[in-house]
Amino acid sequence: LRTAAALIIGNEILSGKIADQNSVVLARALRSLGVTLVRAHVVADELSTIRDEVRALSERFDFLFTSGGVGPTHDDVTVDAVAAAFGVGVETSGIMEKLLREYYGDRVSDGHLRMARIPVGARLIQSHHIPWPTVVMHNVWVLPGVPQIFAMKMAVIKDELGADRPFVSMAVVTTMDEGELKPSIDAVVSAHPEVEVGSYPRFRDPEYKTKVTFDGLDPALVRDARDAFVRLVPPQAVVRLEDGVTQEPPK
Amino acid sequence: LRTAAALIIGNEILSGKIADQNSVVLARALRSLGVTLVRAHVVADELSTIRDEVRALSERFDFLFTSGGVGPTHDDVTVDAVAAAFGVGVETSGIMEKLLREYYGDRVSDGHLRMARIPVGARLIQSHHIPWPTVVMHNVWVLPGVPQIFAMKMAVIKDELGADRPFVSMAVVTTMDEGELKPSIDAVVSAHPEVEVGSYPRFRDPEYKTKVTFDGLDPALVRDARDAFVRLVPPQAVVRLEDGVTQEPPK
Repeated sequence: LRTAAALIIGNEILSGKIADQNSVVLARALRSLGVTLVRAHVVADELSTIRDEVRALSERFDFLFTSGGVGPTHDDVTVDAVAAAFGVGVETSGIMEKLLREYYGDRVSDGHLRMARIPVGARLIQSHHIPWPTVVMHNVWVLPGVPQIFAMKMAVIKDELGADRPFVSMAVVTTMDEGELKPSIDAVVSAHPEVEVGSYPRFRDPEYKTKVTFDGLDPALVRDARDAFVRLVPPQAVVRLEDGVTQEPPK
Repeated sequence: LRTAAALIIGNEILSGKIADQNSVVLARALRSLGVTLVRAHVVADELSTIRDEVRALSERFDFLFTSGGVGPTHDDVTVDAVAAAFGVGVETSGIMEKLLREYYGDRVSDGHLRMARIPVGARLIQSHHIPWPTVVMHNVWVLPGVPQIFAMKMAVIKDELGADRPFVSMAVVTTMDEGELKPSIDAVVSAHPEVEVGSYPRFRDPEYKTKVTFDGLDPALVRDARDAFVRLVPPQAVVRLEDGVTQEPPK
């Protein structure tokens, strides 16, 4: 099983100016590749903090995806922090400088050209999905924080990591609460150790009280667990079954 | 300055089933109290992971707020993990058991009563804002993950922590990009070290290219920094000024 972590960088999230939109996008992309997102850490725009997190998370997981801190301003320190985490310097990428000069033309400033800086030894992934190259240092993907651009990078990740079997998710939506369902859930959890069972209560939802989810890499095993659960619940308490990899939109 | 961390617990977030909605709510509540949210970690429903994070984050920051994992089912292990972090056991709160029995009446199950479990030594905060008590173990607030209930707890936090001076946030919305603004931003950053300056680019927004923000505890210093920046930018590049603690809704 391949594992990953996310490092979301930005004072604007910790101060509540905006909500992080990138974690859930990354989580879904990785899920479709069969990669498990194990943690997501939101930290401030501080070089030493980012450096320490990059070092710890990149050692511990197969992939680390950073979001944010790659613009031209004083609070954009991710490239320097990633370089510091691996004990290397920072250099200007000729390819990226050329792209920046083409894009900005006569308006190009030293500020703009700062965006061509990469850790020494970083790999640039060129892709037909997005003109701007993607910077990868060892197993650390240095992604931009702007949500629209972050989302575009998912196609690059999919191409590069390749798909193992995607995770399959099924669910049973019921009118019973978690306390009532607990014995049935416990029975399925012990009989189906290879399936991850989750239960999600709703607060004052007129339609249902609990959604019980069944996740795993083997569709047959996931379905078996889901069906076993359905047999334990009174039929009138089942609102509907949900199949496949369908996921609710973020709210 | 008081500091805080958030520990968001839930496989459903890491698997992309839902987006975390609680961090931004907590961030804004703390901001209004003058408390700095320094990190937010999203982790899975695993006792040892949660225990280690609770220990590390509660030692390092003045407050830790956990979200999730407090229901009755097998994947609800936050209470046990918090107890383990402080090396204590778990006991049943008589007050909470009574509330559960009153609420569920004849339907009450062992599952429901699991929700009365608290770490030995935890404090229960009773509040007129919400009937269910809030569990606090040393400096760790054990909050529910259901967004509507999590949001209700903010009033309890505000009452209990009390407000220092709230952070003040002002902004300048401009049609210039970050690369062009960099010299002006750098000048303000060095001349106003007590004000936190941030810059947030927009991608293909017809209205503006960059929002530059000025945050701090002293409104006069924040305003000085903001005004100094405005004087450095061509007037026609300023779309508008934003004042006070107004914040954009999460998108």
